[in-house]
Amino acid sequence: MRNTFGTRVTVTLFGESHGPEIGCVLDGLAPGLHVNEDFIAAQLALRRPMGRISTARVEPDPFRIVSGVYQGRTTGTPLCILIPNTEAHSEDYVNLRDRPRPGHADYPGCVKYRGFADPRGGGHFSGRLTAPLVAAGAIAIGALRSRGVWIGTHIARLAGIADRPFDHLGEDVARLGSLPFAVLDEAAGEKMRGAVEAAAGDGDSVGGVLETAVLGLPAGLGEPWFDTVEGLLSHALFSIPAVKAVEFGDGFALAEGRGSETNDPFRIEKGRVVTETNHSGGIHGGLTNGMPLLFRTAVKPTPSIALPQRTVNLATGENEEIRVSGRHDPCIVPRARVVQDSLTALVLLDLMQPL
Amino acid sequence: MRNTFGTRVTVTLFGESHGPEIGCVLDGLAPGLHVNEDFIAAQLALRRPMGRISTARVEPDPFRIVSGVYQGRTTGTPLCILIPNTEAHSEDYVNLRDRPRPGHADYPGCVKYRGFADPRGGGHFSGRLTAPLVAAGAIAIGALRSRGVWIGTHIARLAGIADRPFDHLGEDVARLGSLPFAVLDEAAGEKMRGAVEAAAGDGDSVGGVLETAVLGLPAGLGEPWFDTVEGLLSHALFSIPAVKAVEFGDGFALAEGRGSETNDPFRIEKGRVVTETNHSGGIHGGLTNGMPLLFRTAVKPTPSIALPQRTVNLATGENEEIRVSGRHDPCIVPRARVVQDSLTALVLLDLMQPL
Amino acid sequence: MRNTFGTRVTVTLFGESHGPEIGCVLDGLAPGLHVNEDFIAAQLALRRPMGRISTARVEPDPFRIVSGVYQGRTTGTPLCILIPNTEAHSEDYVNLRDRPRPGHADYPGCVKYRGFADPRGGGHFSGRLTAPLVAAGAIAIGALRSRGVWIGTHIARLAGIADRPFDHLGEDVARLGSLPFAVLDEAAGEKMRGAVEAAAGDGDSVGGVLETAVLGLPAGLGEPWFDTVEGLLSHALFSIPAVKAVEFGDGFALAEGRGSETNDPFRIEKGRVVTETNHSGGIHGGLTNGMPLLFRTAVKPTPSIALPQRTVNLATGENEEIRVSGRHDPCIVPRARVVQDSLTALVLLDLMQPL
Amino acid sequence: MRNTFGTRVTVTLFGESHGPEIGCVLDGLAPGLHVNEDFIAAQLALRRPMGRISTARVEPDPFRIVSGVYQGRTTGTPLCILIPNTEAHSEDYVNLRDRPRPGHADYPGCVKYRGFADPRGGGHFSGRLTAPLVAAGAIAIGALRSRGVWIGTHIARLAGIADRPFDHLGEDVARLGSLPFAVLDEAAGEKMRGAVEAAAGDGDSVGGVLETAVLGLPAGLGEPWFDTVEGLLSHALFSIPAVKAVEFGDGFALAEGRGSETNDPFRIEKGRVVTETNHSGGIHGGLTNGMPLLFRTAVKPTPSIALPQRTVNLATGENEEIRVSGRHDPCIVPRARVVQDSLTALVLLDLMQPL
Repeated sequence: MRNTFGTRVTVTLFGESHGPEIGCVLDGLAPGLHVNEDFIAAQLALRRPMGRISTARVEPDPFRIVSGVYQGRTTGTPLCILIPNTEAHSEDYVNLRDRPRPGHADYPGCVKYRGFADPRGGGHFSGRLTAPLVAAGAIAIGALRSRGVWIGTHIARLAGIADRPFDHLGEDVARLGSLPFAVLDEAAGEKMRGAVEAAAGDGDSVGGVLETAVLGLPAGLGEPWFDTVEGLLSHALFSIPAVKAVEFGDGFALAEGRGSETNDPFRIEKGRVVTETNHSGGIHGGLTNGMPLLFRTAVKPTPSIALPQRTVNLATGENEEIRVSGRHDPCIVPRARVVQDSLTALVLLDLMQPL
Repeated sequence: MRNTFGTRVTVTLFGESHGPEIGCVLDGLAPGLHVNEDFIAAQLALRRPMGRISTARVEPDPFRIVSGVYQGRTTGTPLCILIPNTEAHSEDYVNLRDRPRPGHADYPGCVKYRGFADPRGGGHFSGRLTAPLVAAGAIAIGALRSRGVWIGTHIARLAGIADRPFDHLGEDVARLGSLPFAVLDEAAGEKMRGAVEAAAGDGDSVGGVLETAVLGLPAGLGEPWFDTVEGLLSHALFSIPAVKAVEFGDGFALAEGRGSETNDPFRIEKGRVVTETNHSGGIHGGLTNGMPLLFRTAVKPTPSIALPQRTVNLATGENEEIRVSGRHDPCIVPRARVVQDSLTALVLLDLMQPL
Repeated sequence: MRNTFGTRVTVTLFGESHGPEIGCVLDGLAPGLHVNEDFIAAQLALRRPMGRISTARVEPDPFRIVSGVYQGRTTGTPLCILIPNTEAHSEDYVNLRDRPRPGHADYPGCVKYRGFADPRGGGHFSGRLTAPLVAAGAIAIGALRSRGVWIGTHIARLAGIADRPFDHLGEDVARLGSLPFAVLDEAAGEKMRGAVEAAAGDGDSVGGVLETAVLGLPAGLGEPWFDTVEGLLSHALFSIPAVKAVEFGDGFALAEGRGSETNDPFRIEKGRVVTETNHSGGIHGGLTNGMPLLFRTAVKPTPSIALPQRTVNLATGENEEIRVSGRHDPCIVPRARVVQDSLTALVLLDLMQPL
Repeated sequence: MRNTFGTRVTVTLFGESHGPEIGCVLDGLAPGLHVNEDFIAAQLALRRPMGRISTARVEPDPFRIVSGVYQGRTTGTPLCILIPNTEAHSEDYVNLRDRPRPGHADYPGCVKYRGFADPRGGGHFSGRLTAPLVAAGAIAIGALRSRGVWIGTHIARLAGIADRPFDHLGEDVARLGSLPFAVLDEAAGEKMRGAVEAAAGDGDSVGGVLETAVLGLPAGLGEPWFDTVEGLLSHALFSIPAVKAVEFGDGFALAEGRGSETNDPFRIEKGRVVTETNHSGGIHGGLTNGMPLLFRTAVKPTPSIALPQRTVNLATGENEEIRVSGRHDPCIVPRARVVQDSLTALVLLDLMQPL
């Protein structure tokens, strides 16, 4: 299924960057869930550009829920969220039509849709479409919290600057929820913002690493083959524009160790089965084991940069140079964090649905 | 769908490590594809244990195709492959039933299946089930080759020892196909095998990194959201037992650079649109861009080790110690390589089907 | 998948009868299809109530396509159609909340959604949701016509009055397209309308039979098991509110004959394989055989009637009597015809997509 | 998905009439269900030919369950059932290759699979593939019975001879389970068997109507759109070879009445909401309403008959005559009944799974 994701709880995404409205349909929700529109608005605010270090395009995101909610609760029927596009400046993009931007979907998108795709602002490929995903994710986050599951993501690295690692998971996750710039160490955050401004000043962009912890998941979610928890989450996470890698637990570092170091020994603690370490990131054999779920994604630098770049003119077959004008975000990592929370919540709510 | 993967070409996997037969159903194949049983046997041989550095269990894998093939070609109807289990020694596992092995699916599997799963040899979670995946993958690899698509995977790292990087991709990929121990630098391979033997001598195990290149893919495969090429491949690759991370192109290294370094500039070369670099691993915006597809997976050390480990007794609620006896593979990386090729082929054949 | 239908071309339906907007997302369309908004409006007009013989509620259906179309053609990305609800009179339904209407979804809907469903106007169960299906179907009908496939449905029976059978299929199908009251014999249509008015005068309702012919389909569509053409079409057709039966070709009459009478003998005609008769309705073994596709559905009388009916009060557990006030259609058969065309088109476009 | 059916409980069917083995994979079953192999064998026996009135081919159906069951109970992992083909006589079919049998899938199958399908005995289209469906259905029937749901199907009509209608549903359904020839009125059954023998004597075949009742279903199963109970059941039932029509409740007769006659009034009976009549067959708005589920299918006469028939030679393009030799069943209605029970059980178990 092309633009639909999920098995029990599904999200269908539609819209183009400069079309009249974008949105999504969230289906399979249990009836009776509280829908908190203020929380949705707050999550959408976390996705908005943040002044100098982000794109100058103002996105007030006045969403509307047009179905699936009655008197503040889910009905159990499909919930459609619409977000109008109010401030699109299509002229910024007109000159890009035949000259694909390096690092963007322009060229393969042109091949796939045989030239019929909406070229304005990246069309359906635009990061703008993460807004409805964040709105849908806010509903999923609310549903998970009511069942004791909490998700927190921090900017583990940005432009080579490291945040402090997760320490007291419960406190760290609780604190991240309300932070506009999600770092555990505010001094590191200050340096990160400086690095973003420096890159922006150079007409360039930077990337980073987002690290997520999920607390309160029961053991036994996921499937042994194909629909492993790692497989389902990574499938969703690669929809975050610019994510190019996913690792669970110690990830690539696990490849360097020995089994006696990387296995997580079991222990009974207050009557519960726990592991003494959590190298596996809370997943064994594709299933949750009841320990905190931990993973990291790598976000590449924003491909839209002001510096001149080499491209080709698809109409003439000539090599050319372009400068991508318009308002672009020199680093999407701080905003991508709420998209990562949202997609994680949608996948986990789907997995928990039948329990 | 639990044990079924794919959209147009689907594979449904069944069986338990010590049941009478394991197998899979491959559906959605075009009619008229040549099915080369010798190639299937050769691929299954690459998955087999390799003497001292692998488990001593002999697996001759005498597969049977019981449907979907007539006179050597696919009929277009479901193709079922069966592989009997001939040499299971169930007694090796009996004492593990209540004492989950660290790093294994035993504990979450017990929760998920409420104690009804077949405990012998890991049951449905066993790496043994990769055999039918390799058989199905061999058919997919054959179908892709007939369309000019070639897949090659090498052991990029094992126990901290690095193979040389991909260099001349065409030659490297061609050479890897027939190698029983898939390294580009045989001297590195020699050291790797030594490291595996050393770990085995210590009753321990090691992991590594598998790197894959795919040549000949057209541009425009994949979907902008959810069914990105990265998302589909990673979804499948996490079914390889012990894979804990996936990165495409430069992966985590991309997070450290600037956009001016990580964007891949375009150029016209012999009338074709190409990129000068391939930091993105052949995927932009979730779609193939016609350049070589490149990715790496991290394989953790085999969790079954001879050294004593701390676990719990689920029946008594006591902390205990176990030693996992039986025949175990101190490093599955060399064998996992053919599983990685197979799953990659199944995903790519699915994506190419409607073209 | 709950409110999504289709494999390659999918439609996801959302909305409630008295919510602000209803709509659907149509995904999987080929890029470059012409989208004719006038034709969509004309099809929606065929679905509207028709004066005395239909509900008095005025539904202008001012639809908006907010994604998936650029410069009059499909982009290949999801197409979302929205239709605002402008004239809902919710007070008409308030007193029905605890007293389920006989013949309606009220009672099982209350059980399924545990009382959280939107009770106004039937909520998500409302026949109002066929409007976006008709809009989506109009796009599918257009796509099929451009490939030489034509669909026509007539009112074969209404209140016991029979239209003449299909005769010259090509002419009949062409003529039905533009008819507001789809009968082949206008004298029969006159009697049917009289019967509807008589029923309405009695505070009662009537049903009928819709018969569809599809011309121009290639042979070989469908699957031998499960996704037979009959299975896929019937799956969709039972979403037409009040449809309770589907028969293909001679349908129930086939059960009474002998094989020598019901088999359709083959013949070569102008170089094409045809059958001399078409008792099977153009489907053999679940696949189209290249002959006209023929089927009939039975539409039960509208359950909303003005006459008093026995029901129960779910709050008090008492038997009660209700009169369903509000504006109700004494016969939905004439309007259901365009829904039948639409769902048929969506199923057939899905089946033809990969060819 | 081509040869896979279901959402939560899925069945994947494979095999050809004259291949070495046929079978299916049943996935999504809850762990811990008792699997009664004697009951599976008994159900397969009901599907077997019955002496003179059925094909003379002996089918002992010695099935094997090779996965998904451990110590007599389901494990929750995929259950694969295999049935070897022991007595195929392929030479009977060789001369049919280029001359499609009227009423069969031969011609559209040849187009669909471009001549690569296995032509022996109908290949994948063969009614032989209902054997694994019956085995899978037996497991589903057992699971439903343990939850108080009982299914019964009788031969309502055969060759124009009517059985008595359902009367005391509980007794009737209980009695049908063990009957080899499923009629409620044994005198009618005697006449039916006579009619089959008469047709067989003429080298001809006959059809009939199968009527099913399901008792004990809860209210609220199904979905308002697309996955209505009628839609899901009919989708499955059209996989029974020769079924050409499905009607629920009063079906086509509903089209002739008025709403005041066809609506089912509600009443409280012993604290439960019931309907006084059951014209709707236990389904309102696509959902079960807690009343008995009732439906009928029309089974056309077996297309394989001994009488000469007109066909075409696909190789030469000439009109020809064929006589279908081999062993054929002059009436599949008595055997199709257990397939109808089986598919019904698989659909209903899927719907009940998440409750």
